[in-house]
Amino acid sequence: MSTDPSCVFCRVVAGELPSTVVAETDRTLAFRDLHPAAPVHVLVVPKDHHPDLAALSDADPALLAGLWADAVAVARSEGLDGGYRLVVNTGADGGQTVFHVHVHVLGGGPVGTLA
Amino acid sequence: MSTDPSCVFCRVVAGELPSTVVAETDRTLAFRDLHPAAPVHVLVVPKDHHPDLAALSDADPALLAGLWADAVAVARSEGLDGGYRLVVNTGADGGQTVFHVHVHVLGGGPVGTLA
Repeated sequence: MSTDPSCVFCRVVAGELPSTVVAETDRTLAFRDLHPAAPVHVLVVPKDHHPDLAALSDADPALLAGLWADAVAVARSEGLDGGYRLVVNTGADGGQTVFHVHVHVLGGGPVGTLA
Repeated sequence: MSTDPSCVFCRVVAGELPSTVVAETDRTLAFRDLHPAAPVHVLVVPKDHHPDLAALSDADPALLAGLWADAVAVARSEGLDGGYRLVVNTGADGGQTVFHVHVHVLGGGPVGTLA
């Protein structure tokens, strides 16, 4: 498994930083965002380190597919039956702040407008 | 192929409503949003009708995976090297307005905060 010791999400995956885990599969981990932007705000990350969506798509398409499927499963297990938003920010223009690819799962109430 | 004659995106896929197509695969179509929320705002939809992400995930995981991969490919072909955001709204709380699953690809400049 590829990891980056300087990456905060790799350290969460390794258990070196505390997190509130809500789901785990062989290849992904889902945990609560420390600064929630909605009543439910979970991040779903691959355990492998990939800096962004483009890199993951190139390196491991099956993992990319699994990441989305697991995000949908998290929305379901969190009981977001009223709806939810999935967001992935890529690069500076996209507002990405942690360069370990992650899917935001936002819900638990109206999550506002699109952009 | 499953279609819903009352669905606006099915009608776009069928060519019954005009759209500016930027990419097409066997199973997906990408076209510009009529009301762009960013300098580049493309919608990527499956050609099959699936009302939302949860339904698509249950019905056709391979198509779900292809949809994301195609969205990443669109970001690349649109030259969004500075970054971009992918968004999927699901259900009322998620702000979904057209009930044919679609991925928003937003970029071409800073796309603002997360939610």
